Parts: sequence; structure tokens; C-alpha cells
Amino acid sequence: MMRSIALTTLALMLTASVVARASDPLPSWNDTASKAAIVAFVEKVTEEGSPDYVPPEERIAVFDNDGTLWPEDPMPFQLAFALDMVKKKVTEKPELKDEPMIAAALAGDFEKLLAGPHHDGLLKIAALTHAGMTTTEFDQEVKDWFATAEHPRFKRHYDQLTYQPMQEVLAYMRANGFKTFIVSGGGADFMRVFSERVYGIVPQQVVGTCTRTKYELRPSGPVLIKTMDQLFVDDKAGKPVGIHEFIGRRPIACFGNSDGDKEMLEYTTISNPRPSFGLIVHHTDGVREYKYDAHPKSSGKLVAALKEAPERGWTVVDMKNDWKRVFSTPPASE
Amino acid sequence: MMRSIALTTLALMLTASVVARASDPLPSWNDTASKAAIVAFVEKVTEEGSPDYVPPEERIAVFDNDGTLWPEDPMPFQLAFALDMVKKKVTEKPELKDEPMIAAALAGDFEKLLAGPHHDGLLKIAALTHAGMTTTEFDQEVKDWFATAEHPRFKRHYDQLTYQPMQEVLAYMRANGFKTFIVSGGGADFMRVFSERVYGIVPQQVVGTCTRTKYELRPSGPVLIKTMDQLFVDDKAGKPVGIHEFIGRRPIACFGNSDGDKEMLEYTTISNPRPSFGLIVHHTDGVREYKYDAHPKSSGKLVAALKEAPERGWTVVDMKNDWKRVFSTPPASE
Repeated sequence: MMRSIALTTLALMLTASVVARASDPLPSWNDTASKAAIVAFVEKVTEEGSPDYVPPEERIAVFDNDGTLWPEDPMPFQLAFALDMVKKKVTEKPELKDEPMIAAALAGDFEKLLAGPHHDGLLKIAALTHAGMTTTEFDQEVKDWFATAEHPRFKRHYDQLTYQPMQEVLAYMRANGFKTFIVSGGGADFMRVFSERVYGIVPQQVVGTCTRTKYELRPSGPVLIKTMDQLFVDDKAGKPVGIHEFIGRRPIACFGNSDGDKEMLEYTTISNPRPSFGLIVHHTDGVREYKYDAHPKSSGKLVAALKEAPERGWTVVDMKNDWKRVFSTPPASE
Repeated sequence: MMRSIALTTLALMLTASVVARASDPLPSWNDTASKAAIVAFVEKVTEEGSPDYVPPEERIAVFDNDGTLWPEDPMPFQLAFALDMVKKKVTEKPELKDEPMIAAALAGDFEKLLAGPHHDGLLKIAALTHAGMTTTEFDQEVKDWFATAEHPRFKRHYDQLTYQPMQEVLAYMRANGFKTFIVSGGGADFMRVFSERVYGIVPQQVVGTCTRTKYELRPSGPVLIKTMDQLFVDDKAGKPVGIHEFIGRRPIACFGNSDGDKEMLEYTTISNPRPSFGLIVHHTDGVREYKYDAHPKSSGKLVAALKEAPERGWTVVDMKNDWKRVFSTPPASE
């Protein structure tokens, strides 16, 4: 009888092992240390009865978007959107051309637009092009842009350029009871238009740069009008602030790619009473994507966080060697 | 064979009907129009294949807290907390007594504290007593207060005074795929300390009055320090603004009790492309709870929203006649 139970147990264990291998949750990752670290962390915190077990409601995972879930160099996608909006608005209101930042945008002077601690030129453009619109009108602009605009290098719609390995991490963590949040310097209103369709992340799990809106009850119904009041920039030290304000609970897993994610990585992993995990996507693949860290063309600089990684135990993903494929919809070149 | 299938189907239907009746989801509600309206709405939007069907991710229900899920007259619970904090702080820093609003608080002059469009005196007290604390220190203060303070009339801890019929609505809606959110003028940091334990509402589904925090990496680990910067008052027209900013999706069900909820009720129910539901808890029970509308002792005035209710099709709950019991932990008098 005992032997029969032992054999059955062994058979079950073998079956489980085969099933686990057959359904690799991260098929686009090579079998390197990065993949092993992700899997080890998820298995650790979901093992009931283990001292590292974390109850599902505390399984909060935060993901930067630009550079972590899709490219940000040489130009954040939202900047490409803003430039197209500028062109459109200038056709409607030619006097806008006299604004220095609008002129810089039209001249393609991104250095000027992205200067300042929070890309002040870009914010000015947002104010000039977005403020006064209703949120519904803005949503439609973003939808239309994604349906028509094309990435100049990869020749496809921008929302087809998410990173397949990271899509798999999102799905894998959700399958293990995690709530996945975007915490990004990108505009919340911009990201919420596509986050559910593209990443399976509902709007209430998107934290981003935002300003207040203004409520009005019009004859056609209630509207919210975009303003530039009380700007909140969800970047650098703003990221833990945003996490506290919008999520209200400390994450146990954090995924970023640049120095803008350093504080959020610290907030997740330093002195956290729960087991925690930090990961940095290092852009090392100039052939399939882009190769940069200290000197990106625009945003996405990675120096301080990369230096801090070994001391903090953060996993650093080497895109070139850790990822079998890069994009969710592979370009012809891949 | 056909008859056998028909009989089996009939038997199953009868069983289902008995089960449904046996497990009344709203047992603390009398069988009046209010209960029928709640059930009819939930059944309508969850019936697959029906033109009124709403997919689960869009089933967003928002609940005011003070006066809707627990009492707010004669004094919002957070005001009681703030007064106790004032007394404690004055012991630590006697010079605070010279502040006019602190003096008003110590003298019990609530009229002065609650005057102004956003209870300006109360905000001043919050600034004087909360700003400079870390969010962790503040959480502990709130926890300690709930564990010790007692409601003067009902002689029990404040968090034992939630409305049982509304607890049942929360559970009923969640059982039907709704995400339940608190959208309240109360402080987000205050409410998030108890929302999960008391209402089963996770912190990320609590929208409230808030200010920015400031991130610091201390030798002991990362902290967020409370400030009074960029105050957002989640009341009146601020409620739809908060819903857009924190949830990013229009609710289809809204529960409130005062004119502070009027704009959120409008935003939920007027020109919503989805079927929608609005409900006002009318405080009509001076014996078991409190009876007021136009002239509450402090906050919770209900005039404009009550007037608008018939035109908008909002359900008005008559606490005295619609509720079998009031509190989740009934006082001896009930």
C-alpha cells in the first residue's frame, strides 16, 4: 500500500514536471539567469505555507511603459503623437507657430523639447494642444493616431511594437494572482486608451503623468475638460509618490529600464517586509531594437540605476542575449 | 427522451429558483421598491446575450463613504479622529493652541471647522497635524484610533458602525462581477487603513481627498512624507474628476447620500451609453440612526440631489422603511 502511494506520488510529480515544461510561461526568454530569477520569485511568493508566501491582494507588480514594455529611444511614442498633434493644431490655429516650443517641435528640435527636469517643452506642447479638449475628444485623437500612424523604422503601428517577452511576464504574473500596474512617465489619459487592448491592463491600473480635469454638465451630457492644473509628473521620485497615491500599497515586484525608475525600484525592494523583486531592461540590442544606456538619443538614460543594481540585487536583463524575440508582432527583419 | 430532458430542465429551474430565494443577497433590505431596483439593475446588466449586458471590466460601481456606507451626521468620523489628533498634538506642541482653527477644534466649534466650500478649517487642522509625518506613521495613528476610540452615542468602535444593508450591496455587486470603489470626500490615506478589512475594498479602489507626498530614501528605508501640496478635494464636482483620474472609466452604478454626490450621480447616469443606476441613501430614521436632509448638524446636506432624483430616475432609499437593520454590528437598541 505504501509503495503504491509512493509510486502514485512519483507518477504525479513526473506528470506535473512534464506539464510545467510543456507550458513554459516565458517562451520568448532564453534560459538565462534573468528568466530563472523571474520564475524563482513568482514560485517563491505563491507557495502556500512557505515563509515567503505573499497573499494575492499584496501581489502588486508595477511596470514602467516606455523602454520597459515598448521602445522609448530614439523617441518616446507619445512624443511622436504630440508632434502629429502639433502639426494638426497649427493647421487649425496658425498663430501657434509663434510659440517657441511649437516652433521647436515643427523644426524637429527634440533636444529643446526634452530639456528640463520633466521635459518642459513637451509639457508646454501638451498644454497648447490638449488643454481645453474634453477627455472623450482626446481619447478619440489618440485612438485615431494609433490606427493610422506608423513607426518610421519598423513600419508598423506603434501599438504593435510591445516587447513579447514582457507581454509574457505580464500574463505570467497575472496567472499567478498578481495585479499588474503600469507606472509610467507617459500621460495617463494617453496610455489608458490602449492599455487594456494592448497589455490587458484595465484603466484603473494605469498610473501616469496627469493634470486635473474640470467637470461640466453640458446639454449633451457630462464632460471632463483637460487643463494643465496641478501637474503631476510620474517620473523619478514621482513614481513612488504615484504608487502611494493611486495604488496605496507597496509593490513587491518592479520592472523598469532607466534612471527614471530608480526610486520606484528602491521603494519596491529596500526594507520591504515582504519578499521583493526588481528588474531593469537593459537595451543592448542595436540590431533588433536599440543599444543605449548612458547616452540615449532622447529619454531613457540608464546610469545610476544600473550602478545600483548589483548592490540591490536587481535583475538586469540583457535584451540581446536574454530575449529570443523582441516584438509582439515581429518585423520582417526578426 | 424529450420528455425526460424537459422534466430535468424543469427540475433544475425549480431548484435554481429555490436556491435563489433561499440565498437572498440582500437579507437586511425590506421587499420595497429600492431593493427591487438594485436587483433588477444587477440582473439586467449581467444577463448574457441581452442588449443591456455590460462586460465585467466595465462593471464599475462607486460608493460614497460618509453617510452612504456609515454615518456622517452629527460628525464625520474623520473629524472625530482629527479632533483626537489635535488634542494629542497640542500636548506635544502647546504653541499650536494659538492657531485659530486648532482653538476652534478644542472648543468644539464644528461650524467654524466645517465652513467654506471644502471644510477649510478641517483642512487647516489636517495640515497642522498630519503634514510632515510619514505615511507609515499616519497609518499607525489611524489604526490605533480605530482600535481605541468609541462612538459617543452607539458606544462601540467607529468601524463597527457600517451599514449592514450597504455591506450586502457591496458583496452582491462583487458577486456579480462588479468592481466596487469608494469615492469619498474623506482622506484617501485615512480610508485605506480600514477599507479592506471593513468593506473588502482594496486600497487601489479607494478614491479620496489627497495631497502629494514627498519621497525620501532614509537609512531605514524609503518613506513618503505627507504634505499639503496640490490638495485634491474629492467632493462635489471633484468626484467625477477623481473618478476619471483614479479609475479612468465611467461607472455604471453610483451610490451616494448628499449633495456632495450629485455630480458623481450625474456623471454615472446622464447620457451614459451603458445602462446605469443611481441611488441616494436618505437619512429618515431618527430612532435607529439620524434623521436629516436640508439641515444636517455638520456635513451631509441633501437638497439639490433629492430634488433632481425623480427626473434622473435615481432610487431614493428611505432608511426607516427600506432597511430591516441599520448597522453591521447592531447596537443594543436595535
